[in-house]
Amino acid sequence: MNDYTKLHDSKLVADWQSLLRIFISTENEAAKATLLKYMEQILFGLQDFLEKHVGITEEISLNKLNSFYRDSKINCNPEKKLANVITDVIKNVTPYAVNVASPYFIGHMTSAIPFFMVHLKTIVSALNQNVVKLETSKIFSVIEKQVLAKIHRLIFNKNESFYQLHIQNANTTLGAFVEGGTSANYTALWVARNMAFAPIKEFRGIDKEGIAAAYKAYNVKRSVILVSRRGHFSLRKAAGLLGIGNENVIAINVDKENKIDLNRLKKAIHEITQQGNIKIIAVVGIAGTTETGNIDPLRKIGKICKENKIHFHVDAAWGGPTLMSKKYKYLLDGIETASSVTIDGHKQFYMPMSCGMVYFNKPDSMDMITYHANYVNRPSSLDLGIKSIAGSREANSLILDCALKIMGSKGYALLIEHGIETAKEFAAEIEKREIFQLITCPELNILTYRICPPEYRKKLNKYNSKDEIIINKNLNAINQKVQRIQREAGLSFVSRTTIKTEYYTEDIVVLRTVIMNPLTNIKILNKILTEQEDIYKKIS
Amino acid sequence: MNDYTKLHDSKLVADWQSLLRIFISTENEAAKATLLKYMEQILFGLQDFLEKHVGITEEISLNKLNSFYRDSKINCNPEKKLANVITDVIKNVTPYAVNVASPYFIGHMTSAIPFFMVHLKTIVSALNQNVVKLETSKIFSVIEKQVLAKIHRLIFNKNESFYQLHIQNANTTLGAFVEGGTSANYTALWVARNMAFAPIKEFRGIDKEGIAAAYKAYNVKRSVILVSRRGHFSLRKAAGLLGIGNENVIAINVDKENKIDLNRLKKAIHEITQQGNIKIIAVVGIAGTTETGNIDPLRKIGKICKENKIHFHVDAAWGGPTLMSKKYKYLLDGIETASSVTIDGHKQFYMPMSCGMVYFNKPDSMDMITYHANYVNRPSSLDLGIKSIAGSREANSLILDCALKIMGSKGYALLIEHGIETAKEFAAEIEKREIFQLITCPELNILTYRICPPEYRKKLNKYNSKDEIIINKNLNAINQKVQRIQREAGLSFVSRTTIKTEYYTEDIVVLRTVIMNPLTNIKILNKILTEQEDIYKKIS
Repeated sequence: MNDYTKLHDSKLVADWQSLLRIFISTENEAAKATLLKYMEQILFGLQDFLEKHVGITEEISLNKLNSFYRDSKINCNPEKKLANVITDVIKNVTPYAVNVASPYFIGHMTSAIPFFMVHLKTIVSALNQNVVKLETSKIFSVIEKQVLAKIHRLIFNKNESFYQLHIQNANTTLGAFVEGGTSANYTALWVARNMAFAPIKEFRGIDKEGIAAAYKAYNVKRSVILVSRRGHFSLRKAAGLLGIGNENVIAINVDKENKIDLNRLKKAIHEITQQGNIKIIAVVGIAGTTETGNIDPLRKIGKICKENKIHFHVDAAWGGPTLMSKKYKYLLDGIETASSVTIDGHKQFYMPMSCGMVYFNKPDSMDMITYHANYVNRPSSLDLGIKSIAGSREANSLILDCALKIMGSKGYALLIEHGIETAKEFAAEIEKREIFQLITCPELNILTYRICPPEYRKKLNKYNSKDEIIINKNLNAINQKVQRIQREAGLSFVSRTTIKTEYYTEDIVVLRTVIMNPLTNIKILNKILTEQEDIYKKIS
Repeated sequence: MNDYTKLHDSKLVADWQSLLRIFISTENEAAKATLLKYMEQILFGLQDFLEKHVGITEEISLNKLNSFYRDSKINCNPEKKLANVITDVIKNVTPYAVNVASPYFIGHMTSAIPFFMVHLKTIVSALNQNVVKLETSKIFSVIEKQVLAKIHRLIFNKNESFYQLHIQNANTTLGAFVEGGTSANYTALWVARNMAFAPIKEFRGIDKEGIAAAYKAYNVKRSVILVSRRGHFSLRKAAGLLGIGNENVIAINVDKENKIDLNRLKKAIHEITQQGNIKIIAVVGIAGTTETGNIDPLRKIGKICKENKIHFHVDAAWGGPTLMSKKYKYLLDGIETASSVTIDGHKQFYMPMSCGMVYFNKPDSMDMITYHANYVNRPSSLDLGIKSIAGSREANSLILDCALKIMGSKGYALLIEHGIETAKEFAAEIEKREIFQLITCPELNILTYRICPPEYRKKLNKYNSKDEIIINKNLNAINQKVQRIQREAGLSFVSRTTIKTEYYTEDIVVLRTVIMNPLTNIKILNKILTEQEDIYKKIS
């Protein structure tokens, strides 16, 4: 970091000729060679870095890091030449980034991606298409429609004539590419809200008149969304954003396996319906909870929703791609009964950040959120911006389309299966080591555990709940500390969260691992456990 | 397109060893060479294409294009090798994309970008950081805070001690990177809505309890957003999304220069306030309307908002970067009085799709939309996902940070100034040619005009409004047809829209140009006009 300022070149001046050069449609071989030279600098530089830094990140305090980034003035003239800017990123930035590609990075839903994903992203950036409108994307709007149909078929598995009718239909929409799972959830619940308060009689619909008018027209005083207590926080955010109120996301308790308790769900629906003036906008089923990776009983929820005529949204941001594994797709049984489904591209489709998707069972659902602008898009066109939470948007569908061709669904299935099976091996290993306590078993590739040495565990089994709370508080502090020390050491990374379990009175701190890197294996996982044991021994 | 299926290689099989190879942290020179080989194929392939296709796109009917993309099944095994997939994209996809980098593409706010932007995007994708959380981004969260402060300073120009206090402050937020201008507008209005209905007495705030409860607590029956009739359609979408109702976006008339009529704005505020039970959530000023590029009188709107204690949002998605031009920044005079500002990175910051930003005058404004999740982020951390419409999100701030260093504000200023001044030359040329009628003069780099041959213009001046309507209908048809024929020919592209003018009774169809490519010059613009004249002569 010490040579950070040395590269500053005070002789650089912005001028028109250099500007034109950076906009060249490279008309000669020399210009092409320049393009490649910089790309080589980037690719080799980053690779050299990854090679030398097998761990997660260089140790540095956040305060120290901050201290280098405190200048808020923009230079009038260029500060550095491109080559120096790239060098600077590789030498002074990359070491303090997080090497999410490391097989020792198993704490979050961000991981290594196949190298060709970067190449595909480069194509998308270089063409700089904007799929808001056919006039700025043309074939990319057509490709997006096709890819949406492919994933829709993976989820809903309608017949061939359905897809022939809709795949390139300018009037219908099978889904949309969005920024991420959060936007996908917003979009689905926005549609659900608008369906729940569709135009009737004098009322012109909730999107036009707003929530207060909608409640009046429908004679309700509140509307709610039901989801298990393991629901992603973006659902609360969505309810806040959509004007429903985040307190109106009702958390239903879960069973021992972290799946929504169906009896409680039915009871809640019954009680709410009884009251007469509360509208249920949607029930959300989770296909891969963020914290524990468990999957709600989708078919059964679907049946309940159908009986009660409620929009059934499935948040499969994490688990959706499991459908590509013949071996494990049964875990998502019933997903085809959903009204809408969220899937993330940048999670288990291994696409680069940021890419989410939302799908709708019925090809006219997204009519509920149609917006036009004269300058940009027109009804019944292939302008994808008409039914979309976003305006301008990059053509990420090309990446998924190419990735499916390169890997096949079987390629993805192998990754999914490796994750699930390695997580199961890992769980067995955790149970073998007496210092650890497995908290949630992996159903997909996520598990939680904690450090709970035998002396603590004995006490927990023996004492009453008052002591239990104190013992767990101590354990929470231990797990927090071990996680922090391990993270700061920078060799490996597991995350931590707090969850409510059936065993204890209060929420407990747990360590959380997500196994999605194919290079992560049981040998590496054992090393990570050993490191945690060593840290614990040192601090206790 | 005819060799589309030939590349399909039926012998490819997904297997674990090939999967591992695509996740390699390339440990040797051969692997690095492979990375570069594919990148060369992409960069050279795309460049060769651009060289040979100076125009906008290959002519092909949408029906024909669609017919190649009708298969909704995902192959189990790989369909093609990576090299063949890339070849396929370059040979069979790119020709039917839109060459937005062409200097003849002057119809939309999408354009050529400096070549290094693609390199920077490649770095971002290769590192695959997720700025939702410090644990998956580290230095990139720090860089984002710094870049946000730089652009905040460009807009609000507070003093050095303000920026020293906030630039790396984990408790305050100067703004956020978002998906695009649309998301930025949502975010700003979400904050404004939540401020307008903040917690009071028993009421726990609108985000918690929802709109109906908020209206009850504040004793209002409706809330509104005021903006000129030139406001972007994302504002209506935002009002729909936020539960306010898109009919409650009140369009204020504009003056001759397409700027909000201040007297009408004041009158509207007065009348609404008089009614007593309607809340004004925000007044939106536009700094570069999408259709005409005009800028509202920001200082005066700011004053009105201050007097009436209304949130003042400025949609500077387009015009924001004009602040970097010493010559033209006066056009945005008063922007520093805004409560919040939208700026797009993928517009006049010349970043790749998709990148927007939103800024807040007060560093605590975004507290209004704070959400936490145990597993991912904690209060008072540098976890940028806490106050953000999105969850997972790529580290686009690196691109802007590097671009500012490479080009300096002066480099950007030269681009901005070229656009404005070339648009003025273009306007003069349009006025010289008697077949054309200039409809809106360029204040920034956008203008509208239409084909209105002398014989039509004479009639328009002479006849009464009934005939005027018929004559304009004919002109509308002519302009629509010419625009379509020119677009389909694929050599150049201007967009069309319909706007209301002071001269005519009904909306008229106009041609719209956006001059942002530094390679677009008056010679090229003249060619485009001549092409339109020729098309008109052929069809008339």
